[in-house]
Amino acid sequence: MARLKGFTKLTDVDYALQSFLLQLKPKRLGSEKVPLTEALGRVTAEDIRAKYNLPRFDRSAVDGYALQAKDTFGVSAFNPKVFKLTDGQVHENEAKELWTGNPVPVGADAVVMLEYTKKVGENVEVGKAVTPGRNVSKMGEDVIKGSIAVETGVRLNPHHLGLLAALGKTHVPVVRKPKVAILATGNELVEMGQKLEYGKIVETNRLMLSSLCMELGAEPLNLGLIKDDLDKICTIIKEGLEYADAVITTGGTSVGYPDLVPLAVKKLGNPGIVVHGVAIRPGMPTALAILDGKPIFVLSGNPVAATVGFEAFARPTLLRLLGINEARPAAEAKLTRRVAGVLGRRVFLRVRVFEKDGAFFAEPVRLTGSGVITTMTKANGYVIIPENREGVEEGELVRVRLFSSIMRE
Amino acid sequence: MARLKGFTKLTDVDYALQSFLLQLKPKRLGSEKVPLTEALGRVTAEDIRAKYNLPRFDRSAVDGYALQAKDTFGVSAFNPKVFKLTDGQVHENEAKELWTGNPVPVGADAVVMLEYTKKVGENVEVGKAVTPGRNVSKMGEDVIKGSIAVETGVRLNPHHLGLLAALGKTHVPVVRKPKVAILATGNELVEMGQKLEYGKIVETNRLMLSSLCMELGAEPLNLGLIKDDLDKICTIIKEGLEYADAVITTGGTSVGYPDLVPLAVKKLGNPGIVVHGVAIRPGMPTALAILDGKPIFVLSGNPVAATVGFEAFARPTLLRLLGINEARPAAEAKLTRRVAGVLGRRVFLRVRVFEKDGAFFAEPVRLTGSGVITTMTKANGYVIIPENREGVEEGELVRVRLFSSIMRE
Repeated sequence: MARLKGFTKLTDVDYALQSFLLQLKPKRLGSEKVPLTEALGRVTAEDIRAKYNLPRFDRSAVDGYALQAKDTFGVSAFNPKVFKLTDGQVHENEAKELWTGNPVPVGADAVVMLEYTKKVGENVEVGKAVTPGRNVSKMGEDVIKGSIAVETGVRLNPHHLGLLAALGKTHVPVVRKPKVAILATGNELVEMGQKLEYGKIVETNRLMLSSLCMELGAEPLNLGLIKDDLDKICTIIKEGLEYADAVITTGGTSVGYPDLVPLAVKKLGNPGIVVHGVAIRPGMPTALAILDGKPIFVLSGNPVAATVGFEAFARPTLLRLLGINEARPAAEAKLTRRVAGVLGRRVFLRVRVFEKDGAFFAEPVRLTGSGVITTMTKANGYVIIPENREGVEEGELVRVRLFSSIMRE
Repeated sequence: MARLKGFTKLTDVDYALQSFLLQLKPKRLGSEKVPLTEALGRVTAEDIRAKYNLPRFDRSAVDGYALQAKDTFGVSAFNPKVFKLTDGQVHENEAKELWTGNPVPVGADAVVMLEYTKKVGENVEVGKAVTPGRNVSKMGEDVIKGSIAVETGVRLNPHHLGLLAALGKTHVPVVRKPKVAILATGNELVEMGQKLEYGKIVETNRLMLSSLCMELGAEPLNLGLIKDDLDKICTIIKEGLEYADAVITTGGTSVGYPDLVPLAVKKLGNPGIVVHGVAIRPGMPTALAILDGKPIFVLSGNPVAATVGFEAFARPTLLRLLGINEARPAAEAKLTRRVAGVLGRRVFLRVRVFEKDGAFFAEPVRLTGSGVITTMTKANGYVIIPENREGVEEGELVRVRLFSSIMRE
């Protein structure tokens, strides 16, 4: 089949990823300790156990008076009862003033809220009955000493940071950021900010792929923009493999004469190219390779196809290096019009999801033009149309993987 | 009603926010130019127009040969046709070799893919018919010169950055990050990393609220941890108002004796407190204030209630300062068990959404214990139970607002 010269068949997306990962055997990267103030979005490298109970002591959940619940039996606003104020242990018919967060004193088993009390000299008048345990945060009710407060493989959000701080942590062991070296090739390309002569195009894929890496918690490294020169490409990929955990190339993957990156990878050693040609649209000429035990993602020069190749292959692999099995946020939305699929290809349909009157709708951004970047910028997510679907109907509920947030109309 | 001393009624959440915003009249902040490499996640401050067409010229979408489509009429693999190679303009029965991205030469109107051709000396044998426009990315098909490439009020994702770079931009005008000064109060609190004497609690809310600010693109400023001292609190809030766009306080909002922050705000000027006491659970004692035309969010000291107060009020207000009407990503999921609501209160139910066999489920993390931080760390989103619902049923499809990603089981 002439059309697939360079790669002889198209591999199914799931099969391509699975066989690639099976051969790569990606190991989670090592860990490093970072201060909590710099840990937002990082992934835990260990189970983090509590060194003490949280709360560390029976704590008042309100401002009020600690007392013995049994002493409030029958008490109400119409039948208040006077308690003697104490500053130490709480005995029968005694009460101790507490603020939220204060330890509940020995002897007391409940706290009456301040609003239901009235201080009168050395006494306090209580106008409400409470049951034992009322308004008391029991020692260890949040986290028990020695238990796992945050598991390994968790992406730290603001609440995790708060919990770890509450447990007395100031630092947290997180998985080192995967270093991803990114290389662009193409004689027609020029660096951002340089003069654009006729026939030249600004190279934008490194910026886009770097940003995609940053979003998932990887550290992009810029290997530069290289002319279509086999030896040079070999040298640079080798350089990338030396100090990065993964390499991404963009450009030079289609089947024409300057199909240099797959050639370079083949030249560099074994196993080299594991998959070349994937049943995905856009992104068909994507190749997946392994050298020195490290993944190389050989992506199209076409910006949209490069993005899709990243989503389908680089993203899940990099998440393995981070030790996290995380899906992009998704929304279920009604498709606003019918879209045809392509039998035998997995189609990444770009859609714009919007919220209207509380419901979500997904509007296909454009049907053709995989090279058209605005299909990505006007979209905030994509719908995967499976290989065996002829199309998706208007009004059908689709699962949208979001790469941007949903706007309210 | 004794229970609500300090604030005399609970305001409905929507009404509280709307009346607060109506009085605040938040203006979008000014703009600054940042390099594209630092613009990820920032919000555009202007419509950004294309200075040129994209593509800038009719561009080949493939490696192959440019020719006149009409000359390929009737051509096929079984009936190939020889074209004369040219290096300039393309005349009848001539073809010019092109690589992806090269300008389509004058005279040509289509490109035949390399795979369907064979170069023979000065000629090329073509084995496929093409229609006019085939494999040509037309000048301006992505963006037309002078049109808006990225609108104002867009949070820049990797694709927007790619598009702007393709249009020759190196910098982009974005909305200045809102500066949010954050203050914690409470005699029982100590700074992270300090020795925890009996009865003391680590202050964690500034870290958590700072992280929430960072996530949405604001810049947190730390006003410190203050003892329950009215004058000191006044001084610090004033300081915050001087150099920040918004102030958040945490602690000192409940109705007991040390209810100092609302007092301090009242002392500082007009209009001061606009809302005090909201029909929300948790987060009832939240207050919203305005001083010097700037918003002050007076949040509970309880970490979970503080988070909910942030979500309900600070987040939408800060997004106004950024000029973006953005919702958190949401998932529709099946509730795994029945949960009771609270009539007259909007309940923020914390749930853990997980994906199993392609479907989403939402598991309520815990029903009580608003002070329990682990209800937030075990959750990845929340379901809003409206004021008028007695509960949500098992198996009911609920809308979950996600603050963390969904894990695959």
